[in-house]
Amino acid sequence: MTAERVSSLKTYTASELSTADLLALTARPRINFGSILDTVTPIVENVRRRGDAAVKEYTSRFDGVELSSVCVPIEELEDPELSAESKEAFDIAYDNIKAFHEAQRSAPLEVETMPGVRCRRVTRPIGAVGIYVPGGTAVLPSSTLMMAVPAQIAGCRTVVMATPPRKDGQVTPEVLYCAKKAGVTHVLMAGGAQAVAALAWGTESCPKVDKLLGPGNQYVTAAKMLLQNSEAMVSIDMPAGPSEVLVIADADASPAHVAADLLSQAEHGPDSQVVLVALPGVDLAAVEEEIDCQCNALPRGDVARKALSHSCIVVAKDKAEAAEFSNMYAPEHLIVNVEDAEDWLPLLDNAGSVFLGRWTPESVGDYASGTNHVLPTYGYARMYSGVSLDTFQKKMTVQSLTLEGLRNVGPAVAHMAAVEGLDAHRRAVTMRLGLPN
Amino acid sequence: MTAERVSSLKTYTASELSTADLLALTARPRINFGSILDTVTPIVENVRRRGDAAVKEYTSRFDGVELSSVCVPIEELEDPELSAESKEAFDIAYDNIKAFHEAQRSAPLEVETMPGVRCRRVTRPIGAVGIYVPGGTAVLPSSTLMMAVPAQIAGCRTVVMATPPRKDGQVTPEVLYCAKKAGVTHVLMAGGAQAVAALAWGTESCPKVDKLLGPGNQYVTAAKMLLQNSEAMVSIDMPAGPSEVLVIADADASPAHVAADLLSQAEHGPDSQVVLVALPGVDLAAVEEEIDCQCNALPRGDVARKALSHSCIVVAKDKAEAAEFSNMYAPEHLIVNVEDAEDWLPLLDNAGSVFLGRWTPESVGDYASGTNHVLPTYGYARMYSGVSLDTFQKKMTVQSLTLEGLRNVGPAVAHMAAVEGLDAHRRAVTMRLGLPN
Ligand SMILES: [Zn+2]
Ligand SMILES: [Zn+2]
Repeated sequence: MTAERVSSLKTYTASELSTADLLALTARPRINFGSILDTVTPIVENVRRRGDAAVKEYTSRFDGVELSSVCVPIEELEDPELSAESKEAFDIAYDNIKAFHEAQRSAPLEVETMPGVRCRRVTRPIGAVGIYVPGGTAVLPSSTLMMAVPAQIAGCRTVVMATPPRKDGQVTPEVLYCAKKAGVTHVLMAGGAQAVAALAWGTESCPKVDKLLGPGNQYVTAAKMLLQNSEAMVSIDMPAGPSEVLVIADADASPAHVAADLLSQAEHGPDSQVVLVALPGVDLAAVEEEIDCQCNALPRGDVARKALSHSCIVVAKDKAEAAEFSNMYAPEHLIVNVEDAEDWLPLLDNAGSVFLGRWTPESVGDYASGTNHVLPTYGYARMYSGVSLDTFQKKMTVQSLTLEGLRNVGPAVAHMAAVEGLDAHRRAVTMRLGLPN
Repeated sequence: MTAERVSSLKTYTASELSTADLLALTARPRINFGSILDTVTPIVENVRRRGDAAVKEYTSRFDGVELSSVCVPIEELEDPELSAESKEAFDIAYDNIKAFHEAQRSAPLEVETMPGVRCRRVTRPIGAVGIYVPGGTAVLPSSTLMMAVPAQIAGCRTVVMATPPRKDGQVTPEVLYCAKKAGVTHVLMAGGAQAVAALAWGTESCPKVDKLLGPGNQYVTAAKMLLQNSEAMVSIDMPAGPSEVLVIADADASPAHVAADLLSQAEHGPDSQVVLVALPGVDLAAVEEEIDCQCNALPRGDVARKALSHSCIVVAKDKAEAAEFSNMYAPEHLIVNVEDAEDWLPLLDNAGSVFLGRWTPESVGDYASGTNHVLPTYGYARMYSGVSLDTFQKKMTVQSLTLEGLRNVGPAVAHMAAVEGLDAHRRAVTMRLGLPN
């Protein structure tokens, strides 16, 4: 495929791309977990064996912080002081996230599949969950809300928030405010693979969790991958990769808004993935100019520029071609900045979260519209959903038969058991029905 | 802890067990995946590189079958000949499974979290799924139904069933009947790690799938574990382990029925896990005698006896103690053979599927009540659900804001973005609202 270089972004024409080109263009950069796992494995093993002492050592070595306690019940931490404006912003986000996730409660499911054969599905909270909130220089109170609020609604008994402490050993006040509000029960003052290991195995001070959630750097991701296949008996939310946006824009989309949305993804990190799918009539030069000009004014402009250096524009001839490319790419965030946005939804199959129309920048979903911002990246939107209330629950099926019910379904069961050569299965039925064995 | 040996089953008194005893008793036997992974890794890599040719070689070596074609569209396979009785049994199972899984469709979710801030969640089928149906000497048409029926309801475009061929190179007729009925699109005539690898990577004849499902032996499990952490971009249903049942029985439970239920689990394999939790008044000697006597009459009695050799009885003093032990154990199958079965349900937190009352043997759920039999084992019922319609879908969130909506939520978003130091995020909002940057 030949890429035309319009200022900073490589530009392709969708209809000229072969299948191989499309696969290459929608593939994400390879992450070599081999060497990361070599680093992470001994850390995880050490925390398993030595618990809090190991967590303290790694926190001293990697974060330069000497911890007095590793994990504390949240009520032992003093309520943080926040400005009224900050409180109000977090309270709005909390309310919206709560409203959207509460609506995800599933109605009781009950079906009488045959007379006397009653089948149900009931929901139970996962007992203990660990949520990882990246920290250090960045401050991510929004991630606390995104994971703790649905855990609170689900009714998880134990919610341990792991977050790297600040240099002064404290938890960032905004993060603590959100954690207290959203029912976090314990705070683990550590980050990286050591925090993930402490959650998965438990330590003297840290409760062992059943499920690990949250985005993190490659060490955190590698530790989660390692642990989900280990004897730790822990599940994870989903695989993680760099954050992504795909923006579909039509001719009337404001170049300034398109550029702002691309840049808000790009500023996340130098490995952020940014793709613009342009419908006919989009003034690409104007978009590029806006990107350039806005980027210069950004505090994180350098980061954004690095991300943009491996980003691209795909020019699509129509709605079908644009949607098809987007579905192949399967972006974490999909912004549909077009006039007839609502009509696009039925065409869209693979995306973590979709932002429809002119007035829906990705930022609203990142923070406060109510949807979750922990989403599948790296193409995993093809088969994973973002974090939701379901993430913090499991569902048990329940069947209860009357004697009549067993009479109705029993003969089919006994026949199938016989076909599969499982005679005790057959007899568990025939014996109850008083049939000859 | 001291185990009293009543004939074949070790017996413990729950109230005498320490926390450490309980942990030991509810832990599953360790599976050492290290050596299995050493076998599986080169197989997976070889199939990745050499596709169908590698699958043919392994199928010849491990199954003694020379394949002419590896994976075929199902319409190329002739409709199998089955007895009317078999057809009827499978048709009943199909109808019940369909009814229960169709009821799992989620209602559209829509919340206006603030005026003009519309949040939705929509469901999409996973495009391509691979279902693994164990085969060889055993014949498991029921597993075909359990996975293919919900895939059919979800609307997955591609459903590849992998199953080891019989010695004559054919697919077992019962399995093929169920596969055709439940909308399987392709049949991969292979088993083991080579089949799992072919599904995950795709081969010349086998479509690459997005998700891998189904129980299998330790090689299949190891291959799934390996692949979910690989570049293959594939997810799995859940970790797998030996099948399990925990039976709670009261004094009036028929010892013959209790024994039959324990044995139907035990006959699955020598590593099956079988636990009886006995309430006061259960005649343990009578249960043991029934086990002994019924076991002698079973074709798979040897297998069952091996499984029973590492099984146990826990005597509980009351409902709370019995339920607590069961929740700690988190069994795949939980049979509650008591008079007041319905009252137990609120106490039960961790189980794959629950069988309530006198007339509900596990066999009904294995085959035809309508619930799914692909369930979390090994204690994973603490955090995983069994296979359901959800397994074959993902959910996208969607937000669409009006200008009014952005005015309502925008200031909170802009403030939080500022707190997190993400200025482009803030500007994507303020620019749209015409606010000063
Ligand atoms: Zn963002
Ligand atoms: Zn069974």
